[in-house]
Amino acid sequence: MSLLIQGGELITASSRSRADIYCEGETITRIAAHITPPPDCEVLPARGCLVFPGFVDPHVHVYLPTPSTTAKDTHESAGKAALLGGTTCYIEFVIPARTEEPRDALETWRAAAAGRSPADYSFHMAITRYDASVAEQLEHIVSSEGITSFKVHLAYKDYLEVSDSELYHILGLARRLGAITIAHCENAAAVELLRRQLVSAGRRAPRWHYYSRPPEVEEEGTRHFLFFAALQQAPAYIAHLSSRAALAAAMQAVGKGQRVWIETLIQFLLLDKSYAELPDFEGAKYVMSPPLREKEDRSALWSALAAGNISTVGTDHAPFDFHGQKDLGRDDFTRIPNGLPGIEERVKLLYTHGVLGGRIDLHRFVDAASTRPARIFGLFPRKGTIQVGADADLVVWNPDWQGTISAATHHMNVDYSPYEGWKITGRAEYVTVRGRLMVEKGRFVGPVDHGRFIGRNPSG
Amino acid sequence: MSLLIQGGELITASSRSRADIYCEGETITRIAAHITPPPDCEVLPARGCLVFPGFVDPHVHVYLPTPSTTAKDTHESAGKAALLGGTTCYIEFVIPARTEEPRDALETWRAAAAGRSPADYSFHMAITRYDASVAEQLEHIVSSEGITSFKVHLAYKDYLEVSDSELYHILGLARRLGAITIAHCENAAAVELLRRQLVSAGRRAPRWHYYSRPPEVEEEGTRHFLFFAALQQAPAYIAHLSSRAALAAAMQAVGKGQRVWIETLIQFLLLDKSYAELPDFEGAKYVMSPPLREKEDRSALWSALAAGNISTVGTDHAPFDFHGQKDLGRDDFTRIPNGLPGIEERVKLLYTHGVLGGRIDLHRFVDAASTRPARIFGLFPRKGTIQVGADADLVVWNPDWQGTISAATHHMNVDYSPYEGWKITGRAEYVTVRGRLMVEKGRFVGPVDHGRFIGRNPSG
Amino acid sequence: MSLLIQGGELITASSRSRADIYCEGETITRIAAHITPPPDCEVLPARGCLVFPGFVDPHVHVYLPTPSTTAKDTHESAGKAALLGGTTCYIEFVIPARTEEPRDALETWRAAAAGRSPADYSFHMAITRYDASVAEQLEHIVSSEGITSFKVHLAYKDYLEVSDSELYHILGLARRLGAITIAHCENAAAVELLRRQLVSAGRRAPRWHYYSRPPEVEEEGTRHFLFFAALQQAPAYIAHLSSRAALAAAMQAVGKGQRVWIETLIQFLLLDKSYAELPDFEGAKYVMSPPLREKEDRSALWSALAAGNISTVGTDHAPFDFHGQKDLGRDDFTRIPNGLPGIEERVKLLYTHGVLGGRIDLHRFVDAASTRPARIFGLFPRKGTIQVGADADLVVWNPDWQGTISAATHHMNVDYSPYEGWKITGRAEYVTVRGRLMVEKGRFVGPVDHGRFIGRNPSG
Amino acid sequence: MSLLIQGGELITASSRSRADIYCEGETITRIAAHITPPPDCEVLPARGCLVFPGFVDPHVHVYLPTPSTTAKDTHESAGKAALLGGTTCYIEFVIPARTEEPRDALETWRAAAAGRSPADYSFHMAITRYDASVAEQLEHIVSSEGITSFKVHLAYKDYLEVSDSELYHILGLARRLGAITIAHCENAAAVELLRRQLVSAGRRAPRWHYYSRPPEVEEEGTRHFLFFAALQQAPAYIAHLSSRAALAAAMQAVGKGQRVWIETLIQFLLLDKSYAELPDFEGAKYVMSPPLREKEDRSALWSALAAGNISTVGTDHAPFDFHGQKDLGRDDFTRIPNGLPGIEERVKLLYTHGVLGGRIDLHRFVDAASTRPARIFGLFPRKGTIQVGADADLVVWNPDWQGTISAATHHMNVDYSPYEGWKITGRAEYVTVRGRLMVEKGRFVGPVDHGRFIGRNPSG
Repeated sequence: MSLLIQGGELITASSRSRADIYCEGETITRIAAHITPPPDCEVLPARGCLVFPGFVDPHVHVYLPTPSTTAKDTHESAGKAALLGGTTCYIEFVIPARTEEPRDALETWRAAAAGRSPADYSFHMAITRYDASVAEQLEHIVSSEGITSFKVHLAYKDYLEVSDSELYHILGLARRLGAITIAHCENAAAVELLRRQLVSAGRRAPRWHYYSRPPEVEEEGTRHFLFFAALQQAPAYIAHLSSRAALAAAMQAVGKGQRVWIETLIQFLLLDKSYAELPDFEGAKYVMSPPLREKEDRSALWSALAAGNISTVGTDHAPFDFHGQKDLGRDDFTRIPNGLPGIEERVKLLYTHGVLGGRIDLHRFVDAASTRPARIFGLFPRKGTIQVGADADLVVWNPDWQGTISAATHHMNVDYSPYEGWKITGRAEYVTVRGRLMVEKGRFVGPVDHGRFIGRNPSG
Repeated sequence: MSLLIQGGELITASSRSRADIYCEGETITRIAAHITPPPDCEVLPARGCLVFPGFVDPHVHVYLPTPSTTAKDTHESAGKAALLGGTTCYIEFVIPARTEEPRDALETWRAAAAGRSPADYSFHMAITRYDASVAEQLEHIVSSEGITSFKVHLAYKDYLEVSDSELYHILGLARRLGAITIAHCENAAAVELLRRQLVSAGRRAPRWHYYSRPPEVEEEGTRHFLFFAALQQAPAYIAHLSSRAALAAAMQAVGKGQRVWIETLIQFLLLDKSYAELPDFEGAKYVMSPPLREKEDRSALWSALAAGNISTVGTDHAPFDFHGQKDLGRDDFTRIPNGLPGIEERVKLLYTHGVLGGRIDLHRFVDAASTRPARIFGLFPRKGTIQVGADADLVVWNPDWQGTISAATHHMNVDYSPYEGWKITGRAEYVTVRGRLMVEKGRFVGPVDHGRFIGRNPSG
Repeated sequence: MSLLIQGGELITASSRSRADIYCEGETITRIAAHITPPPDCEVLPARGCLVFPGFVDPHVHVYLPTPSTTAKDTHESAGKAALLGGTTCYIEFVIPARTEEPRDALETWRAAAAGRSPADYSFHMAITRYDASVAEQLEHIVSSEGITSFKVHLAYKDYLEVSDSELYHILGLARRLGAITIAHCENAAAVELLRRQLVSAGRRAPRWHYYSRPPEVEEEGTRHFLFFAALQQAPAYIAHLSSRAALAAAMQAVGKGQRVWIETLIQFLLLDKSYAELPDFEGAKYVMSPPLREKEDRSALWSALAAGNISTVGTDHAPFDFHGQKDLGRDDFTRIPNGLPGIEERVKLLYTHGVLGGRIDLHRFVDAASTRPARIFGLFPRKGTIQVGADADLVVWNPDWQGTISAATHHMNVDYSPYEGWKITGRAEYVTVRGRLMVEKGRFVGPVDHGRFIGRNPSG
Repeated sequence: MSLLIQGGELITASSRSRADIYCEGETITRIAAHITPPPDCEVLPARGCLVFPGFVDPHVHVYLPTPSTTAKDTHESAGKAALLGGTTCYIEFVIPARTEEPRDALETWRAAAAGRSPADYSFHMAITRYDASVAEQLEHIVSSEGITSFKVHLAYKDYLEVSDSELYHILGLARRLGAITIAHCENAAAVELLRRQLVSAGRRAPRWHYYSRPPEVEEEGTRHFLFFAALQQAPAYIAHLSSRAALAAAMQAVGKGQRVWIETLIQFLLLDKSYAELPDFEGAKYVMSPPLREKEDRSALWSALAAGNISTVGTDHAPFDFHGQKDLGRDDFTRIPNGLPGIEERVKLLYTHGVLGGRIDLHRFVDAASTRPARIFGLFPRKGTIQVGADADLVVWNPDWQGTISAATHHMNVDYSPYEGWKITGRAEYVTVRGRLMVEKGRFVGPVDHGRFIGRNPSG
């Protein structure tokens, strides 16, 4: 079975050309100005459209049990939403409990995904305990399972938090294995103490969540992580950077000669803390960690993204219903499940507000949302670009389509949208995953079990 | 006439694939796994080779009169050397005297280049005076001449230096025209005063040059430039950044939300001030501004380059003979013509020490030395990448070739090499410029007048 | 004639004791727990009072011609106001025009003061041009006239501004002579350009003044000054620091090993930019340079003052009437004469808001407003402390007195008070200058010509 | 019994005068130009001498058990040495084991000191565990025992280190009680891990100690402490700051508006890491934590001390014999007892190298070594200044005396001196403690049990 994408303008992180793309089986095999379709070849008309490599979301939660509830998406719903939004591959976090063996957690997450996702996926391995047995399992997981990135939490006291010694050893192990370490950079103790203080002072509405994790807390976490990464000369990836304070801390490390990769989230680029202050508990929809910041932070993040000081844009997709889940924290913000859904909207929002808004160009757009995540996490060049030999993960993008975001029409399994009513320009008209057409004229048409786990190369 | 590059591994800033490239006339028209050459098609065998887009040197001087002498290269010698080194396009600086009209200077530089370079080239427009007439000429130069970048010198007192007001107005004009402003960031008065002080204290050997432009002088220049760029919200490109102090200053601006592009030079990545301290006046070969720094600066620059905080690597190519030119300053370092040759060696050195040395990957290598200069300065996508529709500027790179750098064998018109005796791995086996074969098996075979001026788009 | 201050609590920058002070002639000759007054000794009852050394205002303008008008105070009115406020000595700025000889300007300022001030005074020498003749005059002025501090303006383009070379030479001369250099740190060109831009955009109300001199402009000036001071290893005194941005810049220099003295003003500790935004042109009363900043700046200044990172608190006293002077700029803020009156209120305000407000202790209060200015500028130990041998400049402070500030009752020759209606606790009950009673029960009783010029020692 | 100090030049932190001082009982009662001694009055001739307030050492260990050994001084030997060096009062650290009750530790330390010291002394209370019971004891200790300063260790993993939560609570308690929190700022885990790494790599000589605690480790500790102090808005005192990196971190906090007091040590001002690299295990004499730094750090510390950004100079006196104690670590630097003796030499060294070396003036000298420690820790004005009503702790300083430091002649109970053979100018000719003559013509003459515990006021 072959596929021809005809007449589009191909955009990658570093090219822009009018050309046809011919795919055989799962792979792109030819790129040329004009390709005549052979018989039996499926032809996707792309005239007037942009053709992007499938987008890659580097920061996603699907199976996400929390102490009080579990996020609502399955891989089927999340993967479908991802594809409709142009994301053909996402990386989910395996998060063992502190007492659990990493390999067991991996099995749990694998089982939740296997055969259930229409999109391709991979895993980051969170490390919540470090000892000799964990180290041994991690070596195997990196070398044999194709999971080449670790996640550490400096936040979440007595739950996910690692100690300084664990952090040091994890970074050292990562360096030796060629893995990269992702960090959630907020000081756990400070968050915990500020939360208690706010709650006991009766400051329990969603808006107080911000004050339990002010920018200083993220700045301290960022410095702390980078301090240990420097000691170990290990590659450092800062997850979901949200504030100027943390950005400045990271840039100070760069100025001293340290290599730092930074991820921000689409919501940090577009939303600010005024959303979390909406009345009638509406703010709860916007409660996440780190929290939404000030308008000035947004603008600094855009600049750093444009110039490449921030590398990637993810979602930290974490879908909790407003009714029945977010409202667990109606009387106490510390009980609001943290997170925003976004896997379906990331690409559209970044295109509309980033590219059309004049803040980043088309290549930086593709780079930040596809190529760079693929490169940093070892999916490249199979994913993340359009080239002969790559997976035929392609997005034919209608740049003129106009629509409106709404929970009423989205495909994520969550009862609200943080962007309800927002106008959008552009959508994924056709989406293929390894040569298979999954989205056609904006509707999902693929088999729900098409996705596969993608093993990754060490990239550190 | 058509050309097929067969069997190579194509490397761009964001792709890596085994594919053939077919070029018709001056343009790439097809990229596919296997292309059968039509009759009359010239075939370049690339099996076992890497294929890169032609490299772009963003910072070059060819016609360079100074108060005491004139640099030795012509466009013929420099362009030939560039091509043999894999650089197919370079951007030279037009530098009017303070009393000269920009359009007149442009004519002078144009005349020196027209029909004389085997490689493609473009111009940056240095601004050494700003008034209404200059502004008018610049508008024309940007909009009609395809010269979309300005250069300002904060250094070179009473010669090239612009005042604060001029700087402010230039940045404002650049923003309005979509041009980008490049700055030489050293405080002019400080340099002048330190020079005088050193000379009058009898500190006249080449090694004292460093102390007339310590890192603090570059840091101050960098901050000063970025301060005015921020006031004007204008895009800022820092030329030849050499030190941690300046890098930290630039990163501090990023942390506050400013967009900054940074260029470093191949010599800052590989050499340090100990070279300028070589005895017997040998140090004079390494006298340039800003000066070579400490080893720790080199390592910080590599890290920032790897993570993308530094965007580009240029040469500031400025070939002055050791005998007859550099030795004008035998008794006084302030009379040593400033600059190092490098247009022939940049790519080889960056490949050997960057890629093979494990400091940057192949994609960052292509990006920093080709794609990024092309994008920032509006040559892209015609230059800077391999894609259907782009100029067929291609480099077939033999990754196994081993050689030694020597003035005895180089093609630049200068009597020494800063890298004399250095071992190199990899060379440009074939080089094409707009479909024309210019280098074959490492030898220049093209017509010396093949190069053309390339007009550029506003990119700011 | 002798004088006994009986029963007070003596507070100096580094002592606190109940003791009597006995003065003979102009000098303190004895400090003891109990001193029995000899016959003919004037006794000032100080029981229940604090006794401070006479306060020293390091930053004052009395004779202040500007291009459009002249400040309203004479030395008689300013000196009287100073004394009523507890300030027994002030240092005024001699400001030659760029074309004027320093010695001539000094004569002008001297003549305006001589025999006309009830308080003691000294001069700082502003330098608005630097050449060999100026250097020669300055050597004489420092060594023979007892004027041991220079003032440079990085602001006030084409008027007071010095060039980078001048700045460098001035700092070098200061170091050689043991003088200290005071700087007004704002980038002149930026201010000028922003002013023009605001005015031509119709932004002419007093509130726009702030935007012509944002904190970045002060930060840049501060860095620029400290850069040159570091090159010359010269002592640096930053006048009227107003913002966190400038404070951070100065502290960054300290962190690198530079010696920096910082002055702030009473108005920067107490007022913020909302005052300059008052309607009906009221804001004009608060127009000064650098401008009043944000509330967060105020709080940072208090902290740095408390811990000693900021050394001194001055007034930059510059009294222009609201009616007839400030209103020259009714249609254009750039024509509003810059400056606030304050010589009468500084000490009271600092006591009320600093000491009683719990922000600084009594010793830091005395230090910042008396001892430290005296030490930095070479008046010490004659001025600035209570000790045997010092001038009997003493302030008997009634800590319980309560009053209200008002232009209706103040003694400065200006038709408004920036602090109109503010409540004050504490006042100078008795004030002596060199043993002579000048203020009694809060009323001026001294001869108006009692003050003398005080020559100073090099302190650099 | 009365005492007259006749004819000296009195120097305090803020005064300088020729005057006599008359003391009755334990107290200064009169200061005057000339005081006629009554009958029975002891007269100390001070003509040609400086008279200082007794010096205060804010950072001393006397009773110091470590896991492997115990420091050699008793209060008798340390107190005698202190007095001979001009230090009349020192503050020692009570350091409970993590499982010990603070009140029990206090009793232990109190018992070791009571009736055994010739000099006055007080205690800082180290906190090595925080819980409700500890909190209760601390409240009592502050309010009833006159111990108003806490010490926390961010270093010394699993031994003295406090957790982030403990740190937060301690700072909060300190703020509520008006106490001040002193911190040892080095990251405990990093030190521990670096030590293990060095040792297992066979890097066991004294010189490797430095690399187990590089400046980055101190910088991280400093930032970490100041982060929590800012959260709690608690006063912060950084003990023994040694490096530019840590200084810059602290100054960055000041620039953001935080109040920070900084202490450095006499050894950081005078020694550098080359001493710890001396051959034949001599380096062990210089092993302490944080370690001795680079020459450039020394010079930055002097500048910050001169301008008041660094407040105090202590010793961290910790006397371990070279033979029998330091050599426990002959094969492994981690076993070398940490610390240098210094209580006897601090004042002389600071006078010789600071005052006579032109780095600080006499007033800053007195301030940093006496007044400021007394003020920050609530001993003032009883200690730390010369004034009527203060304790008659006085040092008559012979500024012309010349001598040489040697273990052969010093009085500390330790078999080496870090300053062996150093030339010194100036010594304490006479020293009194509360009116009692303890040192006469440089010899100890007082009763060894004269010293008393001095309760302190809250100063936070």
